[in-house]
Amino acid sequence: MNLGSKEKIITGKEIAERMKKVKKKIGVLSGKGGVGKSTVSALLAVHYAREGYQVGIYDVDFLGPSIPRLFGIERKKYEMILSRDGLEPVYSDRLGIRVVSIQFLLPKSETPVMWRGVAVNQAIRTFLGGCSFGELDYLIFDFPPGTGEAPLTVMDFVELDGIVMVTIPHDLSYMVVEKALKMAEKFDTEIIGLVENMSYFICPKCGEKHNIFLGEDSEILAAKYGIERVIKIPIDLKLAKFADRGRIEDYGIDYFEDFDY
Amino acid sequence: MNLGSKEKIITGKEIAERMKKVKKKIGVLSGKGGVGKSTVSALLAVHYAREGYQVGIYDVDFLGPSIPRLFGIERKKYEMILSRDGLEPVYSDRLGIRVVSIQFLLPKSETPVMWRGVAVNQAIRTFLGGCSFGELDYLIFDFPPGTGEAPLTVMDFVELDGIVMVTIPHDLSYMVVEKALKMAEKFDTEIIGLVENMSYFICPKCGEKHNIFLGEDSEILAAKYGIERVIKIPIDLKLAKFADRGRIEDYGIDYFEDFDY
Repeated sequence: MNLGSKEKIITGKEIAERMKKVKKKIGVLSGKGGVGKSTVSALLAVHYAREGYQVGIYDVDFLGPSIPRLFGIERKKYEMILSRDGLEPVYSDRLGIRVVSIQFLLPKSETPVMWRGVAVNQAIRTFLGGCSFGELDYLIFDFPPGTGEAPLTVMDFVELDGIVMVTIPHDLSYMVVEKALKMAEKFDTEIIGLVENMSYFICPKCGEKHNIFLGEDSEILAAKYGIERVIKIPIDLKLAKFADRGRIEDYGIDYFEDFDY
Repeated sequence: MNLGSKEKIITGKEIAERMKKVKKKIGVLSGKGGVGKSTVSALLAVHYAREGYQVGIYDVDFLGPSIPRLFGIERKKYEMILSRDGLEPVYSDRLGIRVVSIQFLLPKSETPVMWRGVAVNQAIRTFLGGCSFGELDYLIFDFPPGTGEAPLTVMDFVELDGIVMVTIPHDLSYMVVEKALKMAEKFDTEIIGLVENMSYFICPKCGEKHNIFLGEDSEILAAKYGIERVIKIPIDLKLAKFADRGRIEDYGIDYFEDFDY
């Protein structure tokens, strides 16, 4: 990565300066992969933006970045440029959500980011201290799966105001999600909501409701960890379509309508 | 991690000695999380074991290990002990598949493995050179999501005979899977099969077949990368149940029946 003509070291102080301008910093985490963290991050950002807030998303999933695709802005890479104030985020079309993602800096969408942990660490810090998000009401961190380099690095440098934990109703998923909940405890970070994604599927033909995954109700998990807000998002073919076509901002349902954070 | 009374450095030569005893080394990879890599790894191992082969699984997903749970052996941790020949794998109940996973060494199933890349690197090498898999026909590597520390470390030390790539029929997933395909190219490793998981859902009430995800057919992706074998696995409530209850060995359908590798 090249953030200007000379190699630049980012200090913790620089990161703190940037983060001072952000009122609320929310992490979207799971531990488990493929449970829809990025979709949840996007839906949460859209919720806040529709309410009139200034919102940013930092796509911390350097190895599998998918936020730009969800907003249909993956080709706007020429907009993530280095200005006097730092690396400029790319603004989403409808709501002006400020997105920062490694995906904008790759020559092709399928270019792999084959980075060991130390490289991920360096890049995360560079983006944290080097991106000009500006004044924000909400900055959402879309984390990769796992309790490794990415969340550890962000949480060392940024005091998150809260974490939205994402799971699917599958016992195997709960086991891995619990590992992430334990990590949040370690960092003394509040879990402000538990999202049960792919909660159920309604057959579009006969209307029958199916629980595709068969785990315990996530309310039990929420109760165990004292999480007050549980948000259930069904498998919705329309949501899948809007996500796949990069039109997440046009999707009509706001699952975070009653989310008072 | 403590593999005996004194700290032990594992050399590349030791790893090579261990791997000499394994006839075929297969990686199960995706790039994308939550597409069912672990389930596919388990189903592939069960397929080979039923055919009478000696089979092992190395659960390389240190941050989100799920192989022990799929086989219902997560409580057998006292069996993963250090013998004279190294760290003993745990044998599955029905077919004697030899499983190595960090999960066996954790005090509780929900204990998080909060490791940066360097720690993951060290642990992977320790297991590679320190586990006594013995003589094997097939050793299956169940990788975590991403193109980072774990696959890079394994592929630096072990020459994989082939990779089974796992995807779901979702354009966003294809984009990330392509990154993993590019990584495999970089290591000159053959893709011996593409698994399209969660391929479709058959409504148990009305029998209607639904494509829950809406991406292009994965045959197109397979053709683009010259992959000859495409295996489609539907969303099957029965498979989910057997997986959740740790009875993957009792599941009746063999999706790898025609998989001639």
